[in-house]
Parts: sequence; C-alpha cells; structure tokens
Amino acid sequence: MSVDPSATYVIGVDYGTLSGRAVVVRVSDGAELGSAVHEYSHAVLTEALPDGTPLGHDWALQVPGDYTDVLKIAVPQAVAAAGIDPAQVIGIGTDFTACTMVPTLSDGTPLSDLPEFVSRSHAYVKLWKHHAAQGQADRINRLAAARGEAWLPRYGGLISSEWEFAKALQLLEEDPEVYAATARWVEAADWIVWQLTGEYVRNACTAGYKGILQNGAYPSRDFLAQLNPAFADFVADKLDQPIGRLGSAAGTLSKQAAEWTGLPEGVVVAVGNVDAHVTSAAAQALEPGQMVAIMGTSTCHVMNGADIREVPGMCGVVDGGIVDGLYGYEAGQSGVGDIFGHYVATLKDEHTHQRLTELAAAQKPGEHGLLALDWHSGNRSVLVDHELSGLLVGETLTTKPEDVYRALIEATAFGARKIVETFNANGVPVHEFVVAGGLMKNRLLMQIYADVLNMPLSLLESEQGPALGSAIHAAAAAGAYPDVRAAAAVMGRCTRGVYQPDPAAAAVYDELYAEYSELHDYFGRGGNRVMRKLRAIQRRVSGSA
Amino acid sequence: MSVDPSATYVIGVDYGTLSGRAVVVRVSDGAELGSAVHEYSHAVLTEALPDGTPLGHDWALQVPGDYTDVLKIAVPQAVAAAGIDPAQVIGIGTDFTACTMVPTLSDGTPLSDLPEFVSRSHAYVKLWKHHAAQGQADRINRLAAARGEAWLPRYGGLISSEWEFAKALQLLEEDPEVYAATARWVEAADWIVWQLTGEYVRNACTAGYKGILQNGAYPSRDFLAQLNPAFADFVADKLDQPIGRLGSAAGTLSKQAAEWTGLPEGVVVAVGNVDAHVTSAAAQALEPGQMVAIMGTSTCHVMNGADIREVPGMCGVVDGGIVDGLYGYEAGQSGVGDIFGHYVATLKDEHTHQRLTELAAAQKPGEHGLLALDWHSGNRSVLVDHELSGLLVGETLTTKPEDVYRALIEATAFGARKIVETFNANGVPVHEFVVAGGLMKNRLLMQIYADVLNMPLSLLESEQGPALGSAIHAAAAAGAYPDVRAAAAVMGRCTRGVYQPDPAAAAVYDELYAEYSELHDYFGRGGNRVMRKLRAIQRRVSGSA
Repeated sequence: MSVDPSATYVIGVDYGTLSGRAVVVRVSDGAELGSAVHEYSHAVLTEALPDGTPLGHDWALQVPGDYTDVLKIAVPQAVAAAGIDPAQVIGIGTDFTACTMVPTLSDGTPLSDLPEFVSRSHAYVKLWKHHAAQGQADRINRLAAARGEAWLPRYGGLISSEWEFAKALQLLEEDPEVYAATARWVEAADWIVWQLTGEYVRNACTAGYKGILQNGAYPSRDFLAQLNPAFADFVADKLDQPIGRLGSAAGTLSKQAAEWTGLPEGVVVAVGNVDAHVTSAAAQALEPGQMVAIMGTSTCHVMNGADIREVPGMCGVVDGGIVDGLYGYEAGQSGVGDIFGHYVATLKDEHTHQRLTELAAAQKPGEHGLLALDWHSGNRSVLVDHELSGLLVGETLTTKPEDVYRALIEATAFGARKIVETFNANGVPVHEFVVAGGLMKNRLLMQIYADVLNMPLSLLESEQGPALGSAIHAAAAAGAYPDVRAAAAVMGRCTRGVYQPDPAAAAVYDELYAEYSELHDYFGRGGNRVMRKLRAIQRRVSGSA
Repeated sequence: MSVDPSATYVIGVDYGTLSGRAVVVRVSDGAELGSAVHEYSHAVLTEALPDGTPLGHDWALQVPGDYTDVLKIAVPQAVAAAGIDPAQVIGIGTDFTACTMVPTLSDGTPLSDLPEFVSRSHAYVKLWKHHAAQGQADRINRLAAARGEAWLPRYGGLISSEWEFAKALQLLEEDPEVYAATARWVEAADWIVWQLTGEYVRNACTAGYKGILQNGAYPSRDFLAQLNPAFADFVADKLDQPIGRLGSAAGTLSKQAAEWTGLPEGVVVAVGNVDAHVTSAAAQALEPGQMVAIMGTSTCHVMNGADIREVPGMCGVVDGGIVDGLYGYEAGQSGVGDIFGHYVATLKDEHTHQRLTELAAAQKPGEHGLLALDWHSGNRSVLVDHELSGLLVGETLTTKPEDVYRALIEATAFGARKIVETFNANGVPVHEFVVAGGLMKNRLLMQIYADVLNMPLSLLESEQGPALGSAIHAAAAAGAYPDVRAAAAVMGRCTRGVYQPDPAAAAVYDELYAEYSELHDYFGRGGNRVMRKLRAIQRRVSGSA
C-alpha cells in the first residue's frame, strides 16, 4: 500500500491516567491540526467502586466505558477542530498507560460490565498504579530468583507489583470466581485496539515489558504451578495471543468503531502501544543512548540500545520494545508531578505551584537544608519496590513551603540521576536526556534536572507528545512511510540543549546526591526496613492485611 | 520573720518565650486570685534587629525592656484583677526561660540599651533557642572530653549550644568589642531579680544547669584558655557571683521597682528561678521519681533524685537545682508544640489544630503509616545536638494532614519515652509522669503520651503552673512557710492518673517506638550524618558559615 502523505491525516489517541486525548496529525509533516480531550467520568477509583463498595489500601481501578467514551467524544471533536474531512484519515494509532489490565470474556466484554460482577472490585480495570499486589510480586521474585529463571535479569532482577502476573495472581487468590470468569487478561492498550478493530492482537511492547514475554516464551507452566497450583494454566488459558509488531497494522476500523468515531470503516488501526514508548518516535529519539523522560504525574524513561544488557532495577529490556531492530530499555519513577501536587493540595491557597516555583527559584541549591526521597508511590527504578514511601529530612521551624517544594523537585531529579547512572554503569550509556511531558513547562524544574544530571536537556516541545507518537505509528502502519523511524524523521520534533547545566549548582548537587544515595541505599536496600514495617502495621491495624 | 498566711498574698511572675504572666496567689491555700499577661512587643528577633540589621541562621534574640514592661504592666493589672490591697503582698517570685543571657554593664544595664551597640546583634539578649553557637558547643565538648573534665558527665556528656559558655564564646569570637564591653554575663532569670532588688544574686538553678557550676566550681581557667586564650578569664571577669539558694530571698523591692509594680518597697523578692523548675513545686512533684513534663512550644522534664547519677544526654544534674536537699535532674525536648504549630501554619485554613485533632483522634495507632523524628529544633535530650533536624518517613499520595499531625504528636511522645527510658536505665527511675503546660488541654495528645509511655499521667491542672510555682517560692522566701516543700504541700495541686494507657494501643506503640529508636540512633548517633551535612551546606551556600 502506498499513500500520498500530502493530503492525508492520521489520528493519535493517547490514553492517560485521568483522560484521553485525540490529535489529528498531517502525514506529510507532523503538523498537529486539531485535538480534543475527554476526561474519564470515573477518574481513578481508590476509595470505592461506583456502587459504594469500599476498596482496600493501594487499590486503583478504572471503568472501561470511560475509554470508549474517548473514541466517541474526543476523536470526532479533534477531527472537527482540525477541519478535515474524515475520509482523508488513513490511520489511527493509540497508546495507553501500562500496565493497566482488563479482565474480559472471550469476546472482550469487560467483567465489570456484567451485572453479576458490578460490586466485585476484582472485576474492574486494575490501573497501572494499583499497588495492592505487592505480596504476589514478592513471591514471584523470590521464586524466580530461587529457580534462577532466565527472564528475571531482563527486568532488573525484579518483577513489579504493577505488572500482568502479580495483578493476575492477586485476582486469582483474592477472588477465584472472578478469576475463573476471566477468559482473557488484556492490557488496556490492546483492549482499546480490540474495540476499534474487533480483533485481539497483543502488542510486542506490553507483552515484553509487562507480560514477561522473552525470546518468544512466557514464564513456564511449572513456574506458575509452583506459585499457586491454580495458576498453572494462566498463560495458556488467559494470556497467550498472537503478537503484533509496533508500527504495524492490527486491523481496520470496525463498523461499530466507525460509528463511534465518525471515521470511515476500514481505516488502518495500528497495533496498541504505550504512552512513553510512542513518545520516543515523537521526540525523534530512537537511536541508542537517547533517553526520553516523559515527565508528568510519574516519569517513564525509555531508550534504545544496540545490545542487550542486564541493568539492575530497570523495568525491562525488550527486543523491538520501542522500535523493531533495537533493544528497548525502560525505567521509571512511580511518582513525580503527583508528589508535588499532593504537597500543594494541603497548603494554603496562596501557595500555588506557580508561586512556590517563583519563591523556590530565588534559592541557591542547598539553601533550604532539606533532602527528600521521592518514593511516595514506591520506587519503580532502580529498586522496584512499591512498599517504599516518601521521606523528608532536614525540616526545622524555619522551613517554608517553597523549601519543601524545591526539595521534592530535587528528589525526583536525584531519582532520575540514579537511573541514568545505573544505565551508564551497566553498559547502556546515556548520551542525551530528552524531556517530554507536562513538567517541561516548569523552567525551575528543568534547570534543576540539568544541574542534577549535569547534562544538557533536549525537549520535545509538544504538549501532546504521546498522541503525536501514536499518530506517527499510525502513519507507518498505514504505509505512508516504510517504518516508524522514517515516519518519525519527518513527523517528529526535538529541540536540543534547551537547558544547560550550571557548574556551580552541579557541584552542590553532587554533594547532595551523595547524601541522597546514602539514604536511597539505607532505606531501599535493606539497611532499615522501616518503610515496609510501617505499611505492614498500617495494613494490620486497618484490617486490610 | 513569721507571717500570717490567711490574709496575705504573693505574686508569681512567669517569663515565657513570647510573654510574661503575673499571678496573685493567696498564701494560705494557693488560690489564684487574679492574673495578667503582657506580650513582649519585640517578641523573638530571628530575622533582623529592630533597626533592620539582619541576623544569621539560627539566631534568636530578645530586647530586655520587654521584660521590665511585664513588671510595669502585668503586675499592676494582676493585682487589680485580684482585687487585693498591694500592702497585703508579702513576696514576689519570678521564673524565666533559660538559658537566656543578657550582656550588661557592671550596673546591670543591657548593652543593647546603649546607643553605640544598637546595631550590634551580639549586644542583645540571646534567647534560649538561639542555636547559632553550635560550633562553640562542639569545641567545648571535644575539649572537655579530651581533658576528661569531671563536670562533663553531669550534663549527660554534652554541653548545649544553648548554654552560658557556648553563647559567651560565640560572643567573644564573633564580636570581641561587645565581649569586652560585657562586664557581666547574666541569666535573664537573675537580671530580672536585679531589676527588682537592685542587687545581683545568681540563682543556684541556672548556675548549675546552664553555668556548669558543680561542687562550687566553674570550668577552670586552664580549660577556658585552651578553648580560646582570650576566654581564659571569662568566669572571673564576667560570670562569678554569689549564689542564692532556691526559695530564699534575693533582697527586697527597690524604690524604682516599687514604682514600676505599684507594690510597697521592701516586699521580699525570691531568688531567680526557671519556669520548669518552679513548676515542680506547683505540681507537688518534688519527691524522687516524680517527673514533671512542662509541655508547651518545647518540653522540659525535671525530677528530683535522692542520689547523684550520670544519665547520658540529660541536660544536667544539680545539687539543690530544684529544691534544697535533693539532686535535681533536668532533660528536655527542644521542639514540641511549635512543631505542630509550624506544620499547621502552612495548611489550608480549615485544618485548624482542633479539626486535625478530631480527625486524628478517629484513627488507630499505626493507621497512618507514618513515623517522624521530632528534631525540628534539634535534640536536647538525650542526644544534645542542635544540628539535628526533623524527619518524616512513610508519606504516600494518600497521606492526609491529620496523618502528619498525629505522627508529629507521636514523635514527641516517643522522644519523651526515650528520656524516661534513659533515666530508668541509669539508676534514676521514673515513678510518675506529671504533665503541666498548655498542651495538657489536648486530650488526644495526652492519651497518646499515656499509651506511648505506657504510664498513667498526672496533671497540674492550672494554666499558670510556673507563675504558681514562683508564687510558692515567694511564700517560702517571705517566711510564710519553713521551706518550698512545705509551701508546695499547701499551695500546689496535682490530679493523679487522669489518663490511663490502653494496652492495645501501647502494644502497637511498642512496635513503632522500636522503629523510632532505630532512626533515632542512626541519624542521631553518627550512623548517617546527613542532618549535619545539610546544615553545613546550607550555611555555606547562604554565606553564613
């Protein structure tokens, strides 16, 4: 199939934690012509199901209908905003939060849509930040380490409680009836493509990063049986599915999806993907050593490497996990912008993000006397431990809100440096740090990152990087370009060296980073297990143990 | 001198951190008949002198005229409120914050009252919580330890930066000219008595606890010369002075002071004293093992013991330091109520102390998942280190203000338990915990202390315990009773066992206290020196090193 890109368009749909965004992009040059956002009406369920059924600690669920609403509402709005003829759309691509899991019937119907399961929390979508499967993750890790499973080092030595197996095992063990009713255990990234095409294709990205698919194989039946005999056939019964390469076509728009979106039946639908990974294409950062940090409520780091290496605490390395032909590495920080947001939410109204940023920007590094650990949502890299929690040291009676605010920003920058240094030390050198995502707008935060990392920062200056990346994948899938790299070269964008490190600041941050590292290792590597103990006591006294 | 107590009155004047309170008390039964408070017009100077001269980090100064204003304003108001005839007043007693130091001329004139020194920060009163002499305190401690000074263990092995020698050495080294002009280096507790009587008598309490007077001797000239040659004659030139026993008369009211207060010339004035120590008399807690905790912005613990022991990290043990004939022990927590206040000050207006207390009271121990170190103003006991700072661990994105609030209360209770356990372990057993001070009104806080200590709490149910204690000392000094113990037995008050520990809560707090202790020792005893390092970096980058 050959398509003239000059008068054709693709649509990228980016599914975030709280909303979905559709963007119409011109195939010939990547111009973003129109966009629309739809906020999920149920947002994130952390306290109770829609019917009031209470949830335990660390739960985070979603409602699948909120995802299809984005197709019905945001896609037509974006097309209208772009002022294009829907007939000129040649492809649609999507990206999603991950690992976000939907339990479905064999036809893709989410269990939470069934009347008999409406009050069963395990029937709902487990959002990426559902952290209640840590016990299961711990067992997976212990067993895999004891058995010397070859796949374990591909994930930095630790499988996250956020991922497919831990969440599924929690489902089995806490609600066997819902588990039995789960015909397919589906990444939301693939579920939405299933809704668009009517066909279930499992994308190579999440299958590798979240599904432990390595060299064509999942964890063995024997391994699963040893975890729990009833889990033995999990892969065969509920998970295994043909894999689609990133940037290829999963199928074409179904009649029903055409009605939802107002697009013609038959438009090419790209294989599902993940928000961070598609952003690499948008940022033209697909070469080995170009680390892309997508910074928002959390930060995801993705980078291609020419070789496969085992980096401690990385989230994963997957052959073709970002683009075909390279090894895609992923790391992450489970809390960044939401840490700042949580802090500001408690403060007096005059302490806005903007005001705190202004006040903090007037300080020198080290002036506030504080140091924080950025583990309010646990640590995804390099410790991979969701039982960890935040820490602030140095507070005195003269500490001001802007001091804490700046210390929290710095803590996340130290966390990013910990990731970069771990990659560097393990044969996957980071040559460039490319920032995408909403936090790029905070100039203080950007300068702090440049100073802490002691590296220039490049920026993907689009507010809708993932949607652009999904559109690039759609263009490749539709055949407008030979592959994603070629499409990205034309349709993506990146501004180099926007922030330069200040040597004096970098020197102070070197000192503070040494202190951060000492706390990081003490609390994160077993020197003091107080964070885990506090959570255990909390669960016990709350009756949710 | 024998006085009929039935129609006679004494006045107690309590000098706090922000205000002075005068109370008229009936000698026959301790009834508090009238009181008045005067707030210091300059409060605490932490940022700048009155003329705008900026102050460094950790400075805290006051203006002596604010103290005499209390005599001029609050004393007559209290007498008027009590509706008594000033001629019926037989004595006046005072207590003061300590160690609060006034540099004066030989006639008691404060140097900050002299025009030539009005812009010199070192000419002002150094309030107890002036913490900028830590470097000097460190040197005193190192040298005393190296020389094996016999007085060092009497102070738990560490001399505080808050005390007379550290503050004086800072004065010498940072402003030799003001040091040279300082004829007398006077405790505010004695300076106010000097103002009342015209005579300078040094009280046994502060001379022992803050002035390192042990067995009749101060640190030697040789020791001082080794600290700094110019400091060799500090004791002989500026400090040494006749000592007055507690509860005895320092003199009688001078003509000028009679004019200020509206009281007759010749009224007996008791020897100066310290707020916490006089409270023991008010609380009828003068027997060995009765620990009195005066809980307000900070907490001071005082207790008599039959024998002299060396308790690590106690603030001091002084023969006759609380009452004649027993060894007075003192310990302290440098931040308590002000830690809660500092936290609440940043929050949205709806998060009042009362609302947070209500919300926190609905929680079970351990439910919030947090643990704090209560070192926002450093640690007075048992670590005696003002370079320490606060710590909060366990914060997540679901942490609420009431969670932090409760964790801060608990942290101070753990700090109190650390002191009690240290006394118990060193041969000075604590049999009873008696609470005085403003925080007693918070029922949640009291119950948490009972649960954490696993001890019943007795209460001094007066909102003006120190002033009552000073009045008791005035009655003894005036001869209305044979001594302070006899006066306290009649005029003091104490309610036993008002709060009882809950065994289930105590068990959870045992677990949390073990975690607190681990953090306490790690950050407080050299396992991780990050708190000191952060302060050092802060001072360096702020240019105040």
